[in-house]
Amino acid sequence: MSKLRVESFSISLDGFGAGPKQDIDNPLGVGGTSLHGWAVSTRTFQKAVFGSDGGSTGTIDDDFTARGFRNIGAWILGRNMFGPVRGPWPDESWRGWWGENPVYHCPVFVLTNHARAPLVMEGGTTFHFVTEGVSAALAQAREAAEGKDVRLGGGVNVIQQFLRQRLIDEMHLAIAPVFLGSGERLYDGIDLPALGYACTSHVVSPLATHVVFARQ
Amino acid sequence: MSKLRVESFSISLDGFGAGPKQDIDNPLGVGGTSLHGWAVSTRTFQKAVFGSDGGSTGTIDDDFTARGFRNIGAWILGRNMFGPVRGPWPDESWRGWWGENPVYHCPVFVLTNHARAPLVMEGGTTFHFVTEGVSAALAQAREAAEGKDVRLGGGVNVIQQFLRQRLIDEMHLAIAPVFLGSGERLYDGIDLPALGYACTSHVVSPLATHVVFARQ
Repeated sequence: MSKLRVESFSISLDGFGAGPKQDIDNPLGVGGTSLHGWAVSTRTFQKAVFGSDGGSTGTIDDDFTARGFRNIGAWILGRNMFGPVRGPWPDESWRGWWGENPVYHCPVFVLTNHARAPLVMEGGTTFHFVTEGVSAALAQAREAAEGKDVRLGGGVNVIQQFLRQRLIDEMHLAIAPVFLGSGERLYDGIDLPALGYACTSHVVSPLATHVVFARQ
Repeated sequence: MSKLRVESFSISLDGFGAGPKQDIDNPLGVGGTSLHGWAVSTRTFQKAVFGSDGGSTGTIDDDFTARGFRNIGAWILGRNMFGPVRGPWPDESWRGWWGENPVYHCPVFVLTNHARAPLVMEGGTTFHFVTEGVSAALAQAREAAEGKDVRLGGGVNVIQQFLRQRLIDEMHLAIAPVFLGSGERLYDGIDLPALGYACTSHVVSPLATHVVFARQ
């Protein structure tokens, strides 16, 4: 069966997956961009996000970034990853952080408490809004992925919900060499060994410690 | 002035500095020994603790282990690092985890709520028991260190007390590639940036991610 994978999820040394006070000027929370230096440095990221030929190739960091896009047939995102709007949608004007041609190029299922019609973007991305919770989102994403894997983008709260239900097959974490001090802490209330997860790979680059853990 | 340093303090990926249920059979808590594989693998550790000529030399891990013993004139330990006895001392029979010739070879100040006469061991180690709190322990250790640095051994709770008072000058953390899931979490209630600490060095070995942070 296709896997549910988290890839390139960056946290600080003190375990925060995003900084505090997320808003339209700080999509990753205050200080949150410092978590992603390792990824931004890579050719794969530069190409996918900026259409640029810059960035590193043949590095551990580029390998992990590239692996995150491989064999992905659908994504799941928490609503806060889709945008800064909270509560009921005031209108349909918010169309994501990524412009008219988002980086996904496949169906994306956005978890929310507020229904909204699907949003068809350029380049193959369609945002579907799911109000029935994580299991429903996974079922819909699996069907849309047509045998490929589903990638869960985050954020922290959504990943915690999927972990607690043991729905994630494999998760790649990148630990950046920074302290954030506050924000959303990935491990709060999460006991990975008790949930049946164990570390299966530990690879280090100068910019991040890469850890993969999997459900046993 | 001499520095207060934490060295070779090992935590799990999920931030635990010791496993749960510390007792005489599990000095580091259940699962806690898995945090220290990187250190145990080194010549410096093998020599200091077992008098053995085994272990790695010229490695990042050995360099960090060795640095932890350099220019140290006194140590401070929390009582639980000294032993498994809780509450008032029933007698004087507990003399530490390390036998008659402990690894310290200098004065060691043990934080406790229960007074006890100093304990003179072989090899230059004397355990002094301090009941007046962390500032008093630091003052006494500084005086005993005669210009050298003071090393704070731990555990988690004691390190948190010193961090909250901004008394630690520099701290070396080794993040081991394991999850513990429960135990004592170093970062609970600790906001390092707000306390004025920042990461100054990030070096990685196959066995651990080594991070140094310092008071700015």
